Amino acid sequence: MSILIKGALLRGEVTDILIEGKYIREVGPSLAVTADSCLDGTGKAVIPGFVNTHTHAAMTLFRGFADDMPLMPWLVEKIWPNEAKLTNEDVYWGSRLACLEMIKTGTTTFLDMYHKHQSTALAVEEMGLRATLCAVAFDHFQPEKAEKAKAYIRKSFDDSMGYSKRIRYALGPHAIYTVSGELLQWLDEFANENQLPLHLHLSETATEVENSIRQFGLSPVRYLYKLGILSPRLILAHAIWLDSDEIRMLADHGVKVVHNPLSNMKLASGMEFKYNEMRDAGVVVGLGTDGCASSNNLDMVEAMKFASLLGKSWRKDPEAMPAGEMVRMATANGAQILGLNAGEIKPGTLADLSLINLKSPAFTPNFNLESNLVYAANGSCIDTVICDGKILMQDARVAGEEEILEKAAAVAYDLMKR
Amino acid sequence: MSILIKGALLRGEVTDILIEGKYIREVGPSLAVTADSCLDGTGKAVIPGFVNTHTHAAMTLFRGFADDMPLMPWLVEKIWPNEAKLTNEDVYWGSRLACLEMIKTGTTTFLDMYHKHQSTALAVEEMGLRATLCAVAFDHFQPEKAEKAKAYIRKSFDDSMGYSKRIRYALGPHAIYTVSGELLQWLDEFANENQLPLHLHLSETATEVENSIRQFGLSPVRYLYKLGILSPRLILAHAIWLDSDEIRMLADHGVKVVHNPLSNMKLASGMEFKYNEMRDAGVVVGLGTDGCASSNNLDMVEAMKFASLLGKSWRKDPEAMPAGEMVRMATANGAQILGLNAGEIKPGTLADLSLINLKSPAFTPNFNLESNLVYAANGSCIDTVICDGKILMQDARVAGEEEILEKAAAVAYDLMKR
Repeated sequence: MSILIKGALLRGEVTDILIEGKYIREVGPSLAVTADSCLDGTGKAVIPGFVNTHTHAAMTLFRGFADDMPLMPWLVEKIWPNEAKLTNEDVYWGSRLACLEMIKTGTTTFLDMYHKHQSTALAVEEMGLRATLCAVAFDHFQPEKAEKAKAYIRKSFDDSMGYSKRIRYALGPHAIYTVSGELLQWLDEFANENQLPLHLHLSETATEVENSIRQFGLSPVRYLYKLGILSPRLILAHAIWLDSDEIRMLADHGVKVVHNPLSNMKLASGMEFKYNEMRDAGVVVGLGTDGCASSNNLDMVEAMKFASLLGKSWRKDPEAMPAGEMVRMATANGAQILGLNAGEIKPGTLADLSLINLKSPAFTPNFNLESNLVYAANGSCIDTVICDGKILMQDARVAGEEEILEKAAAVAYDLMKR
Repeated sequence: MSILIKGALLRGEVTDILIEGKYIREVGPSLAVTADSCLDGTGKAVIPGFVNTHTHAAMTLFRGFADDMPLMPWLVEKIWPNEAKLTNEDVYWGSRLACLEMIKTGTTTFLDMYHKHQSTALAVEEMGLRATLCAVAFDHFQPEKAEKAKAYIRKSFDDSMGYSKRIRYALGPHAIYTVSGELLQWLDEFANENQLPLHLHLSETATEVENSIRQFGLSPVRYLYKLGILSPRLILAHAIWLDSDEIRMLADHGVKVVHNPLSNMKLASGMEFKYNEMRDAGVVVGLGTDGCASSNNLDMVEAMKFASLLGKSWRKDPEAMPAGEMVRMATANGAQILGLNAGEIKPGTLADLSLINLKSPAFTPNFNLESNLVYAANGSCIDTVICDGKILMQDARVAGEEEILEKAAAVAYDLMKR
């Protein structure tokens, strides 16, 4: 199966792109080749698919259910009681809705951490995206729960052998305040033995840091260092409240970090994400939307704008976080974090890419495509999405989208009534 | 001419809306009426048209031309030399592009301040929106330039008598650092005599406040008070760097304020816009996008989200700036600031409204329409726009949009080459 994209704008040049199987084979002007199918790229620009490196896909079911609330009542009264009722069917439809939303806004890969990840895997298989899905682990510092978590990890890892190559299994210890040091070390060892990513929320709020110092005598990153689990396999979400020595420790151990500007702002977790300092220290930083209960959508184009404008404003520096770096953060860096040969449009990389429809006010005039994409556009600019060499969306339409919207809404309303 | 909107969601209820001429005549379930044309509101929600209370429409021509730069080189090297070359034709096409973008994202009225406003007026007449257009005034503290400015204001005010009722003429002294106190007082008097709004950038940056204290011995609002020009006609853009006494002074004199969260963040002008304090003091606060050279688009849906998330994050309060208040800021408050009987869907108000297409991930599930609109959607959710009782967009299509995109782009490229 091959696809030829004819005459799309790539890095300012009108270019053809030949996709064969799962890979980009050739990139250049007026390629003298034929293909099984041809996409007209006139008036369109091609960009790598976005890699959303932190989300909780099935939380689309909670979109708009409880906003403008302080963290604890929100969790205790609204989120946790409803999460406790979630069935596999709920998570499946919530995840299909998330996949639909991601495809429509140009995301081809995501890193997910949520309950019943097996149902998310099913949705991802059907929707055609690529995903790294974390099995959630926590023990609330109770040894018997730790043993249960270990059994669950062993079992779900074995089950993950049946997934297609688009899905990768990973471990998702929730946070240092819900997972004991002993379980974290066991998970790190399991991840090491099986070459799996380990994904953890860390240093999201000032309170978390204070509690870490009170409980463990150390700030969060220093605590992870003492546990011996800082490694290139570790991917931290949020990581707002870090000092410069902690950033150095992350860089020294090859730890990856995911910035979630929208959720950090909406939940008032903290503004001062130290992107410049991490970049300069050599930490690879990806971009995430977080789940729809905290940031309300999965639009990576919007996330790039929030990341840039938030960085410029708290630093009081209009030159900070320029558009081009935001695009890299949302594509190549994400691919690097998840160990994918993707995130760039060049021969030999995975055929994960999108076409932008340039016939809109956001791209008029088009002096600078990356500027327009980050500062003027939103996810609705995406016209065509290809993942793993297959077309998931064409002319802004995804097969079966009406059914997904209807079914996911029905599931969400039913969940809250149960 | 009458329009019947059948079965659209309004404040949670399926409702019909009858428009006769320029006004909403009836609102209620299953109205037993007929109309010249009928719009099917199934799967749609109706909201008031947005009122963008601060922009520079024709600056769409500069979109993406120079981003990620510090303020002074940006102005001196990029903006001013090109603004000096602007022709009436340029401003006309830049304004038509702006009108197109506003219609597509649900804005029905805007407050504009830009050179050659007569060409913007022509674009507004043709595109069917409502606008308050400021004649720009500045003298750079030179008496001969002040006399020129006065002559220009007298002449352009006389010329404005030919505008349709959708366009209102206003005065736009640029800022206290480009307009002398004497000219400001003359403009205030002219505005008072002719019942015109007076629109001014104020307290946008910390440097502006420092310079005001150095030059006039007073902070900006105190300086305006001393000049005697605080009044209900005065509309201030930005107004970030205010102390509590200045907020009290604005409230006491009925002065209006426009929040521009995106431009304030992107240009790093300041984050701490004191919405809560102004609201509590009784100052009417509207929402603006600013021009596309500073914030890059004219999407009021995006502006609501930025306003809310910025407020929550700098205040460290997830309850601050809730969705409902953002919608009021973008609609009813804007209408109040511009003296329009609009901004609410009820009998007797101007028929300025939009339909949202709810069949999208952003509105699935739909537990809370305002939450979804502010936190999950963007301007692409708008399906139909009616202004002054006329349909400007239906099924997300505006008549002649391709020509506007092509012509405005050509004008912008030509401008930079001249």
